[in-house]
Amino acid sequence: MKRIFIHDVVPRDGLQNENQFIPTHQKIELINQLSEAGIDKIEVTSFVSPKAIPNLKDAEEVMKGINRKPGVTYSALVPNLKGAERALRCSVDEINLVVSVSDSHNLKNIRRTTAQTFEGFEEIMRYLSNENILVNGSLGTSFGCPFEGEIPEEKVLQLIDRYLELGVNGITLADTTGMATPSQVYQLAKTVLDHWSELPLTLHFHNTRGMGLANVNEGIRAGVTRFDASLGGIGGCPFAPGASGNICTEDLVHMLLFMGYNVRADLDRLINTANYLQANVAHDLPGQIIKAGKITDLHSTSEI
Amino acid sequence: MKRIFIHDVVPRDGLQNENQFIPTHQKIELINQLSEAGIDKIEVTSFVSPKAIPNLKDAEEVMKGINRKPGVTYSALVPNLKGAERALRCSVDEINLVVSVSDSHNLKNIRRTTAQTFEGFEEIMRYLSNENILVNGSLGTSFGCPFEGEIPEEKVLQLIDRYLELGVNGITLADTTGMATPSQVYQLAKTVLDHWSELPLTLHFHNTRGMGLANVNEGIRAGVTRFDASLGGIGGCPFAPGASGNICTEDLVHMLLFMGYNVRADLDRLINTANYLQANVAHDLPGQIIKAGKITDLHSTSEI
Repeated sequence: MKRIFIHDVVPRDGLQNENQFIPTHQKIELINQLSEAGIDKIEVTSFVSPKAIPNLKDAEEVMKGINRKPGVTYSALVPNLKGAERALRCSVDEINLVVSVSDSHNLKNIRRTTAQTFEGFEEIMRYLSNENILVNGSLGTSFGCPFEGEIPEEKVLQLIDRYLELGVNGITLADTTGMATPSQVYQLAKTVLDHWSELPLTLHFHNTRGMGLANVNEGIRAGVTRFDASLGGIGGCPFAPGASGNICTEDLVHMLLFMGYNVRADLDRLINTANYLQANVAHDLPGQIIKAGKITDLHSTSEI
Repeated sequence: MKRIFIHDVVPRDGLQNENQFIPTHQKIELINQLSEAGIDKIEVTSFVSPKAIPNLKDAEEVMKGINRKPGVTYSALVPNLKGAERALRCSVDEINLVVSVSDSHNLKNIRRTTAQTFEGFEEIMRYLSNENILVNGSLGTSFGCPFEGEIPEEKVLQLIDRYLELGVNGITLADTTGMATPSQVYQLAKTVLDHWSELPLTLHFHNTRGMGLANVNEGIRAGVTRFDASLGGIGGCPFAPGASGNICTEDLVHMLLFMGYNVRADLDRLINTANYLQANVAHDLPGQIIKAGKITDLHSTSEI
């Protein structure tokens, strides 16, 4: 069966939204456990200003403190040249650039237009041109913007083109606030892979409106084999208090394994790691498998 | 686009599991609101022993107290001949018979084997043979049993055959404890519709392991157009405390509408009704849309 690659974004996308600072040693432990569980790529941190995201102020300590397991790609978000320099000094495997397709979301997020952000990316790419480092280009709000609404497919294609001209190695289309529907996912992913059949394309979904795993299935039907997810399902959207966050890594891996896909991740280890995370955050994780168990966790008839 | 029919099981499958008794007038109000919202079929109650399910001891009062809107099918679960007599006296449109494919689940649930239960159904069908009433046959644990594990497809097909010999008008395949995977749903639904192409087939999913809406999509791909759901997503499985329950009606309708399907239900009215339900139960509803809003509920950039 088809090999599906799992990228866990919990150390960055998940933890950045937590109300409490997660101590550095717990972050390192979490990432080490994800590595041991066979996650293919881990977004370790963000080399952003500590003022902007205090939860990730320990980016260097985390990146330098983890065990780097061969075969795992350790990536980090980089917003600007200074971040790229910091990431290089920590020898990350891959830099993740992020910009929103929607100008209003990008302005809100980082106070720059999409075009201004790409100018910054040019600078970063020039700086990295002689370095042995991968660069992934992410496009936030690819499936809809909470301010502007629908995002024209054409706009997404143009920005993929822009990224590819800059020389990125892969593209991530992110459904930043959980607006993607399954049919839309199939359509957009198919269009992109029709244009660029060899493109390493990742899809990043949120389960804000309950469609997260349905969207994954439609992505796979369209030919996508790489998915972001966040352990425990944390990393929500500020407009949806109480709703689910990123799609949940262990729920995703559970579904894929029981559908017969080839996934490197070890589900039991992931569930243990999710329980470790649960013990270290002050709220219930949105993930279902840590509550319901696996399909194969049978019960005794005397149990209830 | 394809017409999809929504059956709301919240008054029966949802409320029977609540810790608190929901007052009769609130049940009636809930059902009336569901009728006004354009739900195609409502499982109003269960004519079961009040000792077995105290929450539904007001079956007659509810069934007689609601406004019967033309075009809506009002169904009720009936476990035995006595229940059928009660249902007839209340003029329900449709009787829903339920048996588990898995013997051990059926024994646990109603202390009879699957075969013994079908003997009781024969008696019910003889009693109803001259009555103008629809009968639907439901098969619990069609996608897996929490005690026995995998359920052979052949067993499901045999029991559908058995139901059809008895003269039921439609079949529901229920994933009683949320064990179905999307690929399995496609496979089983396709097999069933290949055998009985004109069969009114309903799928009943739980979101216990996060795959509920993904399963719906695969059911639709296989040709199914009828789905059970429970307003707010209540009606969980006893083995999964804290996990999601039935798939959530308003989340389902939201997904289908934004995928372009033809659904009669009015999403805004459903959301209002879910908020009414939320105000009358003592816990958070698992549904996402009442927390996150619709995809089209845009925000102002000054909001956060």
